[in-house]
Amino acid sequence: MQEELLKKELAATIRLYNSKGWSPATSTNYSFKNELGQIWVSRSGVDKSQFTENDFIWVDENGIPQGEFAIVKPSAETLIHCIIYTLFPETKVILHSHSLYPVLMSAIFKSELKFEGYEVQKGFDGQTTHEESVRIPVLDNSQDMNFFKNELNYIRESLLNHCFVIRKHGTYAWGKNLFEAKRHLETLDYLCECEWNLIKK
Amino acid sequence: MQEELLKKELAATIRLYNSKGWSPATSTNYSFKNELGQIWVSRSGVDKSQFTENDFIWVDENGIPQGEFAIVKPSAETLIHCIIYTLFPETKVILHSHSLYPVLMSAIFKSELKFEGYEVQKGFDGQTTHEESVRIPVLDNSQDMNFFKNELNYIRESLLNHCFVIRKHGTYAWGKNLFEAKRHLETLDYLCECEWNLIKK
Amino acid sequence: MQEELLKKELAATIRLYNSKGWSPATSTNYSFKNELGQIWVSRSGVDKSQFTENDFIWVDENGIPQGEFAIVKPSAETLIHCIIYTLFPETKVILHSHSLYPVLMSAIFKSELKFEGYEVQKGFDGQTTHEESVRIPVLDNSQDMNFFKNELNYIRESLLNHCFVIRKHGTYAWGKNLFEAKRHLETLDYLCECEWNLIKK
Amino acid sequence: MQEELLKKELAATIRLYNSKGWSPATSTNYSFKNELGQIWVSRSGVDKSQFTENDFIWVDENGIPQGEFAIVKPSAETLIHCIIYTLFPETKVILHSHSLYPVLMSAIFKSELKFEGYEVQKGFDGQTTHEESVRIPVLDNSQDMNFFKNELNYIRESLLNHCFVIRKHGTYAWGKNLFEAKRHLETLDYLCECEWNLIKK
Repeated sequence: MQEELLKKELAATIRLYNSKGWSPATSTNYSFKNELGQIWVSRSGVDKSQFTENDFIWVDENGIPQGEFAIVKPSAETLIHCIIYTLFPETKVILHSHSLYPVLMSAIFKSELKFEGYEVQKGFDGQTTHEESVRIPVLDNSQDMNFFKNELNYIRESLLNHCFVIRKHGTYAWGKNLFEAKRHLETLDYLCECEWNLIKK
Repeated sequence: MQEELLKKELAATIRLYNSKGWSPATSTNYSFKNELGQIWVSRSGVDKSQFTENDFIWVDENGIPQGEFAIVKPSAETLIHCIIYTLFPETKVILHSHSLYPVLMSAIFKSELKFEGYEVQKGFDGQTTHEESVRIPVLDNSQDMNFFKNELNYIRESLLNHCFVIRKHGTYAWGKNLFEAKRHLETLDYLCECEWNLIKK
Repeated sequence: MQEELLKKELAATIRLYNSKGWSPATSTNYSFKNELGQIWVSRSGVDKSQFTENDFIWVDENGIPQGEFAIVKPSAETLIHCIIYTLFPETKVILHSHSLYPVLMSAIFKSELKFEGYEVQKGFDGQTTHEESVRIPVLDNSQDMNFFKNELNYIRESLLNHCFVIRKHGTYAWGKNLFEAKRHLETLDYLCECEWNLIKK
Repeated sequence: MQEELLKKELAATIRLYNSKGWSPATSTNYSFKNELGQIWVSRSGVDKSQFTENDFIWVDENGIPQGEFAIVKPSAETLIHCIIYTLFPETKVILHSHSLYPVLMSAIFKSELKFEGYEVQKGFDGQTTHEESVRIPVLDNSQDMNFFKNELNYIRESLLNHCFVIRKHGTYAWGKNLFEAKRHLETLDYLCECEWNLIKK
């Protein structure tokens, strides 16, 4: 997908998720990698309900703003995006969400979320049946981005379902394109909503 | 209703249900039978928020794509649509939803959902009073479409309310037209939301 | 307000409440009384998401369609509207909703809902402080419209807050104009949502 | 921001929050202070779904309508806005909401709400880490505006997170501009929704 079109479609996704309450209080961030391998992340401090294709900034693989954006202070979490692009080179789009149910699940499950028997599990790339179980890592929250770098490197094999949750913080999900990244994020969100409701019974 | 108009109205319904969260992560599928008895099903892998009248494909009664669509791989669940059209020849529209409450109910009730005393029960064709009870079948989930064929044939008389739920998967609802199919789906969804909340007390 | 404008505004309200899930599966009905004292009710069987100013029919005080509408079969519940207009002659607009929380509350409270200490109680005409308690009648559901006539006549003084709930069915709310009727309906809905959540603790 | 633009943007915020159910039954009120230090508050009795930039009235620091608005009766709660502008002179925008979760939390926590370990806590100006705890005052409801004046003056230092909740009534949040006031209100709302769900476990 061409860069300009992807910017428009990702911005539309950002506004859509904002309308669902997934980026309360201007939080969350998003990124994509273009055909030249350049990483573009959402500018921080923008009201997500009004986010446009002009609100992305270009950063290098260490999260440092490049070119005309060199004067912009990026979100501290930009480094998490960079780490994911390094760990999974096929990744083209990364979405971050503060949607409620993964956050709630992360508050009561220590190291992973486990789902079994849901048809929607097949929304994760590589899952072909509801009969297997799916495990999604839960990481502690931290202000230290090196903590995430080490953690994600360490649990790399656990990230096969293309997402993880940071405790009482939110979800990161990614994919080979925007369509797949959205599918991974929405799959996790739906599974968390189901399980959260069921474990109350 | 003419085919072109029905395609437009069904596509609008698909987008509406997507906005309600009933087709998370590109899941679910929909179909109609036109005046010639041809079955048209929603193409799989399309983001339901952008589904249009051009996203239906023509299949035969065994779910095999026909004509110009012969090269398209249909959803495995296309066969469930075909089974319903065979079992209930008056059916013209079939809707499939992953809406939350029927899925939750199906996780805790083994073989059927039972509703009593709700005014909205009258949304099911043939129900004329809230004073009777309504039973909706719950089937186990399966990757084997023949399983559903046998199950549905076996419980045919239990399907009088024009819908059933697949465990931890979703709802199928149908009708003589789009208006009725929608009414059946929304009636079940509403009843499940009420009961789910009440059984927590 | 002139009849044509009121028809448009009430139709807009009907579509708004439908989008909130308050009229699932084509259910509910609405009415107003024009400057000549003529009663107009919503035509039944119309998808409320597409309800327009042309979907009202004129009925007499016994709910019998008049003039060009004589051939239309009105909803059985039209008589509830007529009873309310008779009991409370100042009433100009009546709204009926199947919104979730009043229905849930009616399933567990036998004859009335009681609210105390909520600021929003002042949304009911005549309530000037949150320090008083508010009581809303709950009636059993019935297919017999004379039952409602007798019940409502009997509990007339209990209807000071301009609304009541029918068990596992829905809410009727009314007012001297559309603005007030909406305020009464939304006030009850909000209070029920709060209380339902609190009684679970 | 110029007055006319701010009026438009605040009116858009008011309509947005109404669509989220935060101002049921025409309740709530909003204000801003312009570059001349004049206070403008939302006119009461306006359906918030149709609130426009023309629905603000100018009041003095005692809440008395000025100029052409001298004939308008302001909301009793106008004085709460005036008190906040006096206590926190940097305040330019004040938002009031009846959103559900703060109201529910206020019904069970006596004098304050406490949040720990949430990333979103950083939405409050001055909070730089999720590792500290955040405390939000809960005040009893009252018809007496002097009660609020005394209470808020007394707990002034507790209001560092730029918001408080009135029991079974709603939230007040403010900021140096509309962007910050929204962030404070949405941060509290999100934290309350999380905690409310977690304390049920």
